[in-house]
Amino acid sequence: MAWQNIPMTALDLAFVLFDYAAVAVFGATGALAAARRKHDIITFAFFAAVTGVGGGTLRDLLIDAPVFWVARPGYLLVCLAAAVAVWLLGRRAWRMNLLLWLDAVGMAAYCVVGAAKALSLGVHPVSAAVMGVLTACFGGVIRDVLANEPSVLLRREIYVTAALLGAGVFVALASFGVDRLLASSAGMVVAFAVRGGALKFGWSLPGFPGTPD
Amino acid sequence: MAWQNIPMTALDLAFVLFDYAAVAVFGATGALAAARRKHDIITFAFFAAVTGVGGGTLRDLLIDAPVFWVARPGYLLVCLAAAVAVWLLGRRAWRMNLLLWLDAVGMAAYCVVGAAKALSLGVHPVSAAVMGVLTACFGGVIRDVLANEPSVLLRREIYVTAALLGAGVFVALASFGVDRLLASSAGMVVAFAVRGGALKFGWSLPGFPGTPD
Amino acid sequence: MAWQNIPMTALDLAFVLFDYAAVAVFGATGALAAARRKHDIITFAFFAAVTGVGGGTLRDLLIDAPVFWVARPGYLLVCLAAAVAVWLLGRRAWRMNLLLWLDAVGMAAYCVVGAAKALSLGVHPVSAAVMGVLTACFGGVIRDVLANEPSVLLRREIYVTAALLGAGVFVALASFGVDRLLASSAGMVVAFAVRGGALKFGWSLPGFPGTPD
Repeated sequence: MAWQNIPMTALDLAFVLFDYAAVAVFGATGALAAARRKHDIITFAFFAAVTGVGGGTLRDLLIDAPVFWVARPGYLLVCLAAAVAVWLLGRRAWRMNLLLWLDAVGMAAYCVVGAAKALSLGVHPVSAAVMGVLTACFGGVIRDVLANEPSVLLRREIYVTAALLGAGVFVALASFGVDRLLASSAGMVVAFAVRGGALKFGWSLPGFPGTPD
Repeated sequence: MAWQNIPMTALDLAFVLFDYAAVAVFGATGALAAARRKHDIITFAFFAAVTGVGGGTLRDLLIDAPVFWVARPGYLLVCLAAAVAVWLLGRRAWRMNLLLWLDAVGMAAYCVVGAAKALSLGVHPVSAAVMGVLTACFGGVIRDVLANEPSVLLRREIYVTAALLGAGVFVALASFGVDRLLASSAGMVVAFAVRGGALKFGWSLPGFPGTPD
Repeated sequence: MAWQNIPMTALDLAFVLFDYAAVAVFGATGALAAARRKHDIITFAFFAAVTGVGGGTLRDLLIDAPVFWVARPGYLLVCLAAAVAVWLLGRRAWRMNLLLWLDAVGMAAYCVVGAAKALSLGVHPVSAAVMGVLTACFGGVIRDVLANEPSVLLRREIYVTAALLGAGVFVALASFGVDRLLASSAGMVVAFAVRGGALKFGWSLPGFPGTPD
């Protein structure tokens, strides 16, 4: 990322850690999709990698940045570790609930990290917010398409909306010159709070009321 | 697009208008896919955006051009407007028929606009025609994959063929030095006429006659 | 490819021939997917093209190389020829078995060709091996997603593993300075042998033993 080329502050380091943590958590959800169908360890690793780095890959292609994991295969190794961890720990009844909450943390981190990378490369703020949403959501979308399951887009629970609010808050604050630490924290808290509310209370937006067919 | 950097003629302006109109029409078909499953407004917007800009995004990635909507988020706002329009107007029984014809207009515009952008960047004519087809068809393909519906590729009615003929006529005429206005019009008319015939008369190409399994 | 810009040796020529042969074989598997559903010739060509060039396209986007077929539409014509061949020859009961073995040859060629192209552009060895796997496998993944069939990722038979071993052997040998002809041959032989064993003896890796839900 752009800020890795200049001397690192504690905030920069936090961003990098969030980045790896989000890759690991998303990778674990990919491996879990493979576990549900009792696949082998290579398929575990493939799903972990696609889910872990898929959203950020799309973001980098769209904003014409070098794809982040190609020069830093550490990201792939993190996905591999997540796959192995799910394989080993998943023998017990899997604590799906824990994973959903970890996924919420990953989503909250990624919608801000994705938007921040786009902003730092001079992308228009509206597009930068969209990049945050894509980074947070598209890995899971690719996972579900490849696993032939209904994607997160087709479930009624709030997910994309939480990413959009988090990215939107961050981009808006950053555009008005608010300190980056504050803007990032606000974006992550908003995204996590909204997604957490959906998990805990089943929040959803009203569906289309018409009879389109 | 390349021609937006030089003084605009009426033709250039027409191309830009066709471009936005095609995004709006395709965006509306995406929102309609969301309406069929009674999704919320955010999902409407997501499907509208993916369908509206998906084909052109793939084209730009393949020919290594900056992705057209990243620097001009107006395209995303057009998709958002299309999603809101479908939400508001779709409460009445949706006039599917009108949408199919609008989609035919969008397809006819996009197969020419997509090929023209590729040609203007020096892409080989054969590849430029393929870019026209991808621009016209791939937004819908992504929409159908994400919505877990059989894609336009799997339906028997003529669609890809119409885009291929339209893009082919445009590229052939343009390569032989025919005036761009004439070549564009011819390509759009051919694509629209073939697709219109398929809609009105159920035209289809003969299917594979063998017994492959 | 990078080595096409310098004077060609016999090895270079072999690589180019392997490249076209793999595109043709994968294209044929795409056309066969269309044949199963009795599609028309345009859909045959579309599936042949997507399957034939899909994996290499993803590789080139990820490593930021010009997409290989855009400047050389000969690759598309090879896919078209494969589609026509399947159309004409497929009327007889299709020899699925032959195709599976040809696909194994294509996969073995592509996992090495894909990794070699990445290495020649200075990509990190770990990422280069991943590029080999993607080149070999992703065309088929896109074909299966578009055809709405369970992808190769979801079948239990060894496939991705063979590509990974072939690409890994090639990259490891090339990184240790082994002659490229030897490294390439070793990679292809390993990939083909493992995939061939899976075809002939039904080899598969052990599946996940847990009860994740």
